[in-house]
Amino acid sequence: MVTPMDPTSSGFLFAESRAQPMHVGGLQLFRRPEGARRTFVKDLYEEMLTFDDPAPLFRRVPHRSLATAGQWTWAEDGELDLEYHVRHSALPKPGRVRELLELVGRLHSTRLALERPLWELHLIEGLRDGRVAVYTKMHHALVDGVSAMRLLQRVLSTDPAETGVAPMWSVEHDPRRSLAPVSPVPVSPDADGPGPWGLPAGTVHSALALASEAAGLPAALGRTLARGVRNETSAVSLYAPRTLLNTRITGARRFAAQDWPMERIRGVGRATGTTVNDVVLAMCSGAMRTYLDELGGLPDASLVAMVPVALRARNAARNGQAPSARGGNAVGAVMVRLGTDEADPADRLEVVHRSMVSGKRALGEMTPAQILAMSALGVAPAVLGPMLRLPGVTRPPFNLVISNVPGPRRRHYLNGAPLEGLYPLSIPIHGMGLNITCTSYDRQLGFGLTGCRRTVPHLQRLLGHLDHELGALERAAGL
Amino acid sequence: MVTPMDPTSSGFLFAESRAQPMHVGGLQLFRRPEGARRTFVKDLYEEMLTFDDPAPLFRRVPHRSLATAGQWTWAEDGELDLEYHVRHSALPKPGRVRELLELVGRLHSTRLALERPLWELHLIEGLRDGRVAVYTKMHHALVDGVSAMRLLQRVLSTDPAETGVAPMWSVEHDPRRSLAPVSPVPVSPDADGPGPWGLPAGTVHSALALASEAAGLPAALGRTLARGVRNETSAVSLYAPRTLLNTRITGARRFAAQDWPMERIRGVGRATGTTVNDVVLAMCSGAMRTYLDELGGLPDASLVAMVPVALRARNAARNGQAPSARGGNAVGAVMVRLGTDEADPADRLEVVHRSMVSGKRALGEMTPAQILAMSALGVAPAVLGPMLRLPGVTRPPFNLVISNVPGPRRRHYLNGAPLEGLYPLSIPIHGMGLNITCTSYDRQLGFGLTGCRRTVPHLQRLLGHLDHELGALERAAGL
Repeated sequence: MVTPMDPTSSGFLFAESRAQPMHVGGLQLFRRPEGARRTFVKDLYEEMLTFDDPAPLFRRVPHRSLATAGQWTWAEDGELDLEYHVRHSALPKPGRVRELLELVGRLHSTRLALERPLWELHLIEGLRDGRVAVYTKMHHALVDGVSAMRLLQRVLSTDPAETGVAPMWSVEHDPRRSLAPVSPVPVSPDADGPGPWGLPAGTVHSALALASEAAGLPAALGRTLARGVRNETSAVSLYAPRTLLNTRITGARRFAAQDWPMERIRGVGRATGTTVNDVVLAMCSGAMRTYLDELGGLPDASLVAMVPVALRARNAARNGQAPSARGGNAVGAVMVRLGTDEADPADRLEVVHRSMVSGKRALGEMTPAQILAMSALGVAPAVLGPMLRLPGVTRPPFNLVISNVPGPRRRHYLNGAPLEGLYPLSIPIHGMGLNITCTSYDRQLGFGLTGCRRTVPHLQRLLGHLDHELGALERAAGL
Repeated sequence: MVTPMDPTSSGFLFAESRAQPMHVGGLQLFRRPEGARRTFVKDLYEEMLTFDDPAPLFRRVPHRSLATAGQWTWAEDGELDLEYHVRHSALPKPGRVRELLELVGRLHSTRLALERPLWELHLIEGLRDGRVAVYTKMHHALVDGVSAMRLLQRVLSTDPAETGVAPMWSVEHDPRRSLAPVSPVPVSPDADGPGPWGLPAGTVHSALALASEAAGLPAALGRTLARGVRNETSAVSLYAPRTLLNTRITGARRFAAQDWPMERIRGVGRATGTTVNDVVLAMCSGAMRTYLDELGGLPDASLVAMVPVALRARNAARNGQAPSARGGNAVGAVMVRLGTDEADPADRLEVVHRSMVSGKRALGEMTPAQILAMSALGVAPAVLGPMLRLPGVTRPPFNLVISNVPGPRRRHYLNGAPLEGLYPLSIPIHGMGLNITCTSYDRQLGFGLTGCRRTVPHLQRLLGHLDHELGALERAAGL
């Protein structure tokens, strides 16, 4: 059975290449439950495999042929091989976090095979501290980053005593399994599902992408972006210098991840009258400054980050935006001057803060189409690539994307194993070799840095620089 | 730079599908050297990565476009990412051979990405007995099974004290690196290289495939095969019953492997006046009988195996065959009645022995074109598939392929680590869900069983049956 594919999804398939795989990922770290059997991971793996009747979303394969006139459609995989998608792996010695990040970076480098359903889950043992990792990979044509993080939580419980929760691909999680398998184009915002973890049987894209679609993008997107990139709409553009982050990339990835206590970040915000987001951006700013300086590539002008921000439902409605079906938030994107040209941490934080305030104000003055265009940028790296090659575009519109995706506030468990860390993996593209995405969980903030292994060297060093910068910000705030 | 691809290689690319990946593999098991550092595997991996200038064969990617009129050609990978091709992995606990075979079966299931050079090497640690495994995977468009086994030996030394030997992809092993990168079609037999481990800079196919090509196949092959399959040429065909081995397969693989001492097999041969090959086939016969019987699928008629055999150079020349450049052997294929309908092990050995004798005699009576056709079958599963779908073909021409590839007789070492076992992985295709390939090494014979995970259940059981059958043959021979 062949069903249509929405334009956002097929855009990701058309944009994909060996150097630009279009999948998102998530890394979860679990502590073994007290008194767990030695075979805890193996048992978990085997239990997962018993859920061998995946929901429609996890069965579909992209299909394109003469019969579809070269357009991508969805077909159902009649020979789904669950053990291909769900794998049990181990780390080489000495089994440090370093070996884990190395493996996850490698797994994130490989393109999903288009001849099979576009997802993988890797259960990873062999960390010397006994923790267990889960790396999940889903194609952006199937799900966007925000929805992917939500999906990751579906197998978790807030009750440490609960076991046997069905894995994310199980039909048990699919509220629409008895309905028609896919909505026709265009997908309505209501398709985003009824419940908090509800999943449409079709493609899962958050309100963001759905809204872009509804507005008739990418045609409108193209026009607005072209203006923005050419600096004709001053509200959305700044001067972004060239850096090593802004070159053609390869298909190899490296991943770095670390947590910091949310309370430390909040503390700096309270003491300086700034937001958590401001402090996160200031951490990134100081870290990027040191990193580029060490490599002899710190530009004189400040780096510019593209930062997706949530807009209140009321503002969104006033601006004529489609509010999300999930409860009143719409998303826009602000171009933030990071202040990497400032030597003092407090000055950098101040620059970031002012830039965010004026950026959000500018966002309020933008037309709905402009906001949608910026929003689409945040979730749709696929459309950015072609933009960067527009005639007249001689510099990057910004240097990197920094996102902060809210995660669960309460502690979650997988078959009694507490989730200790949650880190998102994103999509570098040509011209944007590094992506920083943060996710809050429990009382910490997890940073996930996904970079091109060849053009963004020594990615791990950024973790040390981030840590150092948080300390510097605390000292500057008198903490 | 784009260079032509020979028809044998492009045949494998055209024939490939998700259910029929066209790569061969090899599994090598090494004992850790005495007094090796704890980081032996890691050090080995890092040393391998220093050889970061692969020979032309290991750099080429298949390329097809409008400009090539849809034909496959070879292009050079300008962004080769060695860490994509050479990987360091580990086994989950408890790290038995079972977990190793599970991992290797999974690695063998995945298609090589056509957008990159068609090879992978996995260095695997985590066996609880401390041994180290190497799984190597190469596309059949690049290399055939026999040449692949030879390639695997190139990194080894007969001297336990020798270290730092360049890995198989290193240009140091390539005697033609200063010459033109690839020969035009058709490749001449001389292209098979000058020395014992010599490698042409182009595609590496043994004399077998080269000879088929020179004869203008696959057109002639098609005609001859069609006659053979339709039972019009009695010399090459027997009645092969339908079994579970002879259905459509999926892309999932399982791998089973085990050694037996060559001396035990030779002992049975000496006592019964049969050859090593006869005893190997009798072991397979008894094992298949028990296996199919347990599954309730033992046919009344005997299974028929297709067995590639080496022909003496003199006979080959008399028959008008192209002798191999490598020293006078040509290869033919004999259809062997396995005697699975016989209850007694001695009777089965006798049936196999007589069938081999008459099959070799029949081979002597075949025309060169017929022999070539049969030969091509052995190395070219790609051509068999379409044949099985010819009008008028209502049964399989044989039930499985059993090959015996001679390996090194002396003990070999990798950086001081003795090679303890060597097992080939081959290519199941639609209609032929199981392939058994044996390789001699040192004083043992390694069996590699590659099967479709879905249609050939409980593959591991065959190992126990093979072992039991060798014992039964020894008792029958009065040993």
